Amino acid sequence: MNDWPRHLLDVESLHRPQIEALLKLAARYKHDRSPRHTLDGRTLVTLFFEPSTRTRSSFEMAARLLGAEVLGFQKDGSSVAKGETLADTVRNLDALRPDALVVRHPSAGAALQVARVARASSVFNAGDGAHEHPTQALLDALTLRERFGSVEGRVISIVGDIAHSRVARSNIHCLLKLGAKVRVAGPSTLLPAGIERLGCTVAHTLREAIEGADAVMALRIQQERLGDVRIPSTRDYARAWGLTARTLQWLPAHAVILHPGPINRGVEIAPDVADGERSLILDQVDSGVAVRMAALALCLRAEAPP
Amino acid sequence: MNDWPRHLLDVESLHRPQIEALLKLAARYKHDRSPRHTLDGRTLVTLFFEPSTRTRSSFEMAARLLGAEVLGFQKDGSSVAKGETLADTVRNLDALRPDALVVRHPSAGAALQVARVARASSVFNAGDGAHEHPTQALLDALTLRERFGSVEGRVISIVGDIAHSRVARSNIHCLLKLGAKVRVAGPSTLLPAGIERLGCTVAHTLREAIEGADAVMALRIQQERLGDVRIPSTRDYARAWGLTARTLQWLPAHAVILHPGPINRGVEIAPDVADGERSLILDQVDSGVAVRMAALALCLRAEAPP
Amino acid sequence: MNDWPRHLLDVESLHRPQIEALLKLAARYKHDRSPRHTLDGRTLVTLFFEPSTRTRSSFEMAARLLGAEVLGFQKDGSSVAKGETLADTVRNLDALRPDALVVRHPSAGAALQVARVARASSVFNAGDGAHEHPTQALLDALTLRERFGSVEGRVISIVGDIAHSRVARSNIHCLLKLGAKVRVAGPSTLLPAGIERLGCTVAHTLREAIEGADAVMALRIQQERLGDVRIPSTRDYARAWGLTARTLQWLPAHAVILHPGPINRGVEIAPDVADGERSLILDQVDSGVAVRMAALALCLRAEAPP
Repeated sequence: MNDWPRHLLDVESLHRPQIEALLKLAARYKHDRSPRHTLDGRTLVTLFFEPSTRTRSSFEMAARLLGAEVLGFQKDGSSVAKGETLADTVRNLDALRPDALVVRHPSAGAALQVARVARASSVFNAGDGAHEHPTQALLDALTLRERFGSVEGRVISIVGDIAHSRVARSNIHCLLKLGAKVRVAGPSTLLPAGIERLGCTVAHTLREAIEGADAVMALRIQQERLGDVRIPSTRDYARAWGLTARTLQWLPAHAVILHPGPINRGVEIAPDVADGERSLILDQVDSGVAVRMAALALCLRAEAPP
Repeated sequence: MNDWPRHLLDVESLHRPQIEALLKLAARYKHDRSPRHTLDGRTLVTLFFEPSTRTRSSFEMAARLLGAEVLGFQKDGSSVAKGETLADTVRNLDALRPDALVVRHPSAGAALQVARVARASSVFNAGDGAHEHPTQALLDALTLRERFGSVEGRVISIVGDIAHSRVARSNIHCLLKLGAKVRVAGPSTLLPAGIERLGCTVAHTLREAIEGADAVMALRIQQERLGDVRIPSTRDYARAWGLTARTLQWLPAHAVILHPGPINRGVEIAPDVADGERSLILDQVDSGVAVRMAALALCLRAEAPP
Repeated sequence: MNDWPRHLLDVESLHRPQIEALLKLAARYKHDRSPRHTLDGRTLVTLFFEPSTRTRSSFEMAARLLGAEVLGFQKDGSSVAKGETLADTVRNLDALRPDALVVRHPSAGAALQVARVARASSVFNAGDGAHEHPTQALLDALTLRERFGSVEGRVISIVGDIAHSRVARSNIHCLLKLGAKVRVAGPSTLLPAGIERLGCTVAHTLREAIEGADAVMALRIQQERLGDVRIPSTRDYARAWGLTARTLQWLPAHAVILHPGPINRGVEIAPDVADGERSLILDQVDSGVAVRMAALALCLRAEAPP
């Protein structure tokens, strides 16, 4: 099937041909970044209940490059706590009749809830709790495809706090759908029980995780989890799971490094690795704009799926 | 008279033909929301000294739909307290030569003060203390007119904290000018003495307020007033003044419900009433964009009054 | 030489013909503010690590008037402290491929660091610690040139906290390059040792500073320095260094007053002086938009230097 949904809420419910169509369009946008009139007269509202510069700015840049206007809202937890419900906030913004709502929220399932309430708008999940962050996975897939031609049969290792990571979850779904083999690894307290059921394999040491891999995706260690029982210290974490010149010796020479950012230099990734030749971190940012352009164009029916 | 003022500071000083002209233009915009070039090359600056998502975003959407650019500023009380005066802030923004300044401020009369200082710009009052919130009253009037054809002779009840409500004050002026009958009601501690002198009548119970009314406008109970002597608890308030399935039995079958938002579900309005068939709450949001488009177009002399 | 650098990081490294070219273009923009298509399709990112309404809004207005889009980021110190490095933040924004980055940062040299990291973008210093604030000096020069025809041979006094002022530093460089004579004055604790080496003279009283001057530029006293040993109280400061009707008697009749804003009324400048006929404070704001338009157009190679 080649049609594209009205909302982009997750990768789990996308079919491979849909993902392929989006990546094809995104690749085209990435290599011709000249401003377009595809979404002239359309308006996108960003509604972020968690801080973000990178994802929000990437969506905003994508919208602007296609000719759309952007209205931005940032809500902190406190005003939400004593104020109106998420559904009421969304109903109100939706009643302004924007064409798209881009939502980030700390609760898993929030994007789906928003899509149920919004009558006028296409809804884009920019991260909902530990559930999904679909455009992140799609930009990672674009970045990997451009490097390898295809991810079919490639081995991709995701290393870090798997349990709390929407980036990991979306990537597992996306990479498996595209035919890759996915390994996950991290401190055992941060590996959710039964994660293999998604179709990935679990590695118990960094070496096991990255030997023979084509790409390693390091996840960001959240500040708020450091120092608790699950990650005693950044030094311990870095020693066991950090990507460094030493640990990368286990990685094939052709393999590449990804990270969704922002990076903690010296914790999950060493500075010389982040800035080194294998690192695709800045290319991921570039892919991000293109993938969000494609998602906007397809969901808003402004481009036919290629 | 059919001319339109340069600033929109209040409803009190508008004449009925001016209000009618604005509502006529707004109705046209509401039913044809296609983007226009009416304000191409013009710039609007929003200057909010109180938090707002709804009014600010509505003005921003209105400006964008007419082709104008929007620059936004949000000032918190602290930076104002130790920093420059309101007049100096305004003089500086005005010296950037925007075409319009949209101002919300906690002090009654602030919008007038801004208009006196601004040389270049049209000034729009987006709420000044307990004084006025003119675009709110105009959007309520548009919403009611579209439902009833005209508000002439209709009975509109405004229920809640009348004393501190700029929404109430602007609506009383607007509805009376358009020939409606206005009742106000709420806890006696929240009814300003002498309010009848504006031309409305006062009701002392919810039943008295809404029996025979064509529309009920529930006001938002401000969090900061809850728990003080005037409103002992939300439960007490909801029992006496809340719009619920039970209390709405006193209302004629054709009557409608309005609320300026954001709503406190279960306090001034029950969830099933807010979401029910009589509720025009989301239509008010829709009217809001159209009314602000019309106000911008008329004050900036980009449209002749129809 | 008539070429213009890709980045605008300081005034110190500009040559007089470059400054003259920018001021000539800015004067043209100031007197014809009609919107242009010079930067259509270009995007500017503002990255402010210190609060600012005036400079940020001026850059934004400038960009919009030339047809560019603006994406804005505000970072507070705390998120920077625990988060990614300045270089990583910049690399990420730069990877979005904006055409220009406008940066304000509390550390001297930050703008240069940003320019070293940014591959795609022109970098504009909107103030870096106590180092430079080049567009402020250029707008002051434009304002003075429009008043006096040329600043060649004119005496300009800069009064206040010279030690911590990037405005003073950029102005000293700019005015000297344009052939003016510069005097600096202020409490001895706020005069950096050896400042004369830049080419200015030092005055030790307000009277000595402003007698025979063509213009006086009062600097803003930072709230955070008040009450420490260097400025015991605002009253003491105002008495010794404040521009008032009384102290301005020492100033020639034709002389003018400038202030970068925001002003502390009654401290470094009396209200009647700030609002008086000699004050060019609002004209400075007007010049600011024009100077930033010119800087954007020249650095982005969208206009040839006139």
